[in-house]
Amino acid sequence: MNHTTINWNNQVTHLLETQYPVIQAPMFGVSTPAMAAAAAKAGCLGSLPLGDLSVDDCITAIRSTKQLTDKKFAVNIFVNEIPEITDSLKIQYAETKKFIEKLATDHHMNVDLPEIDTLKVSSYHDQIDVLISENCKIVSFTFGNLDQQSIEKLKNNGTILIGTCTSVEEAIILEKSGIDIICVQGIEAGGHRGRFTNDNIPEIGGFSLLPQVYDAVNVPLLFAGGIYDTKTLLAAKTLGAQGFQVGSLLLGSAESALKEFEKERLRNAKENDIILTKSFSGKYARGVQNAFMKAIDSTEYILPYPYQNKLTAGLRKIAKLNENADFVSIWAGQSLPAFSEKSTEDILLNLIKETENYPLK
Amino acid sequence: MNHTTINWNNQVTHLLETQYPVIQAPMFGVSTPAMAAAAAKAGCLGSLPLGDLSVDDCITAIRSTKQLTDKKFAVNIFVNEIPEITDSLKIQYAETKKFIEKLATDHHMNVDLPEIDTLKVSSYHDQIDVLISENCKIVSFTFGNLDQQSIEKLKNNGTILIGTCTSVEEAIILEKSGIDIICVQGIEAGGHRGRFTNDNIPEIGGFSLLPQVYDAVNVPLLFAGGIYDTKTLLAAKTLGAQGFQVGSLLLGSAESALKEFEKERLRNAKENDIILTKSFSGKYARGVQNAFMKAIDSTEYILPYPYQNKLTAGLRKIAKLNENADFVSIWAGQSLPAFSEKSTEDILLNLIKETENYPLK
Repeated sequence: MNHTTINWNNQVTHLLETQYPVIQAPMFGVSTPAMAAAAAKAGCLGSLPLGDLSVDDCITAIRSTKQLTDKKFAVNIFVNEIPEITDSLKIQYAETKKFIEKLATDHHMNVDLPEIDTLKVSSYHDQIDVLISENCKIVSFTFGNLDQQSIEKLKNNGTILIGTCTSVEEAIILEKSGIDIICVQGIEAGGHRGRFTNDNIPEIGGFSLLPQVYDAVNVPLLFAGGIYDTKTLLAAKTLGAQGFQVGSLLLGSAESALKEFEKERLRNAKENDIILTKSFSGKYARGVQNAFMKAIDSTEYILPYPYQNKLTAGLRKIAKLNENADFVSIWAGQSLPAFSEKSTEDILLNLIKETENYPLK
Repeated sequence: MNHTTINWNNQVTHLLETQYPVIQAPMFGVSTPAMAAAAAKAGCLGSLPLGDLSVDDCITAIRSTKQLTDKKFAVNIFVNEIPEITDSLKIQYAETKKFIEKLATDHHMNVDLPEIDTLKVSSYHDQIDVLISENCKIVSFTFGNLDQQSIEKLKNNGTILIGTCTSVEEAIILEKSGIDIICVQGIEAGGHRGRFTNDNIPEIGGFSLLPQVYDAVNVPLLFAGGIYDTKTLLAAKTLGAQGFQVGSLLLGSAESALKEFEKERLRNAKENDIILTKSFSGKYARGVQNAFMKAIDSTEYILPYPYQNKLTAGLRKIAKLNENADFVSIWAGQSLPAFSEKSTEDILLNLIKETENYPLK
C-alpha cells in the first residue's frame, strides 16, 4: 500500500527552526511553560501565552519556560485597542457589576468584583520592550495588528512575527505590515476569535477562509481550528497551510492548566454545547456553554473588551477554586473528539507519526 | 512533476451512475431544468429543486428537465415540519405582515401581502407519490428527514436517497433511517441551512463537521459549502467526502435563473456582505446582506418557516421585477471568488479538468 510521503520541511519550519511545522496553540489559562517545553521536545513550536500580563509576570513566565527548554518558543500577546473609560462606560460597568454580583449570589457565590477605577488595563506596548530584553525570537499576537514602530523594533531584534487573521481582509492588512507568518483562524477554533477589523458577522468557516487567504497573500500560513488527526492536518495542507496549530487536542494533556473538573466537563461536552459567547470577556470566544453564558448572552450586560474580562476575572477565579464549572470559561473548538490525557509531547508526536503513516487513498 | 491521479470512481458515482462524483447543488430559485441538464452533460449529477412546489408544478418541472436530458438527475424537496396555525401565530403573522408592508411602502414599493388563511402550505407527502409516478430515481432532501413510510415507498421504487445534515447528530439520524448518501453542509454553504434537530447554535464549520461525520457514520458523504477549485475539492476528499456538491460556483452561469442585477450584486459582494439571516423565510440562510435583512433581522418580525417564506414571496417577486436588490434574497456561500458566467457544463468540466491536472505538492 502506498503511504503519504510528507515533506515537513517548508517555509514555516525554516522560519521557526523546528523539526515539524506543528504549533502548540497559545491558550491563555491552559498552556503552561511545561506545555511549551513539551511541544519543543516533540520537535514542534511551543507557545507561551502572555495575554495582557504585566511586565513582571511576563518576565517570570518567559524565564520559567527557558528553564525548561533550550529550544525557541513563541510568546503570544494581545494587541487589542483599549476603549477609553467614558462616563457612559462607567455607568454600564456599574450596572454590569451589579448584575453579575447578584447572579453570583443567586448561585451561592460571594464575589466582590472590582470598581472600574481600580482596574489595571495595560497596553501591549509595555510588553514589547520586555520581549526584546528577554530575547524572545518568535512573537505571535492576536486581537489586532502590531503598530509599525513595534514591528520595526521586533524585526530589528531578529524576531519572527506571527499574526492572526479571521478574514481575507485581515490577512492582507497583516501581509502589508510585513508580518512573517499568518495564522488563519477558522470559525471552528476554540477560545477567543482574533477578529480585529470589526466584531460583526461574518465568522468565516475555515474551509472557506484558508483557501481564500491562500489565494490572496504570499505569506506562509498556519491553520488553527479543527486539526485533530491526519485527515484534518492533510486537508489544511491541501487548502494552503504550511503550519498546523493545535489547541483543543491538548486541553486534557498532562501539562494543561485545566483542573480535573474542567477536563470532566470537556469529556462530557456534546457538539451542541460548544458555542460562541461574549459573556466572559466582551469578545467572542468559543467554549462549553454553562449557566454564566446563558445568563449573560443576549443581555446588555456585556462590556467592551477588556473591561468585561477584567470584571469577570475574580468570579472565574473563585469558581475555579470552588470547582464550579458553571462560572469558569472552558474554551474549546468544534473538533473535540480526540480528548487525550497523555503528555503534550506524546499527543503531538502521535499526530505526526500517524500522518507519516497515513495510507494514500 | 507528479500530478494527482484522481480515481473518480467510488460509491457515489456507483450509486448515482455518473462519470464524476460532482453534484450541481439544488438551488431553489436559481437552478433550472437547463442547469440540471447541463450538469448531466458534464458527467455530473444535475439537481432539480422542487422545494415545496405543488404537485402540478413538480410534474411540470420534472418533465421539462426530462425533455432536456436522458440522464438521471436528482430532485430536491423540503421535508420540514409545518407548525400549526395557532391564534398566537395569527396575531404574529398579522403584525409581521403590517410591518413588512410598511417597510415596502417606505421603500416605494406597493405590495399586497397575503392573509394567513389564504396561504397554500403543503406537506412533502403529496410530492412523494409524484416522484414515484414520474419515476424520479434520485431524491435529495433538506430541512429534515423523510418519514419511514416515504423512505420505504421510495426505496421500493429503486430510488437513491440523499439527506442533508449540519451536525453529527443529524448524520446519525439519517444513517439509522437507511438514507443512502448524506450531504454534509458546512456553515460556509450558501442558501438555507438544512439543520433540523434544532434551530440554534452551533453552526458547525465544514472543517470540523465533515471529518467528524466521517468518523461517526458509514454512509458515503457529499460535501457542500466552499468547494470552488481543486484545492477545496481535494481537501473535502481528504476530510472524508466521496462526492462534491457545487452551488455558488454556478450562481452566475448561463443556466442560472438569477437576473443580471442579481449577478451584479454578487460580483460586487465582499466577504463581510455574506451573512446568515432568518429574515426572508424564518429559517437561517446565507446570502448577500441587503436593506430587507438589516430591517428585519434582530426584530421580532420573523415568523416560523414556512410562514415567513410565504409572507415575503410576493415582496421578493415584485422586487425581482423591479430589479431591486434590496428586497430579493440573493443566496451565496462564503467562497464566492470564482464567479463565472460560462455555462454550467464548462464550469463543472473546468473544475474536474483542473483537479485532474493538479500538481502534487
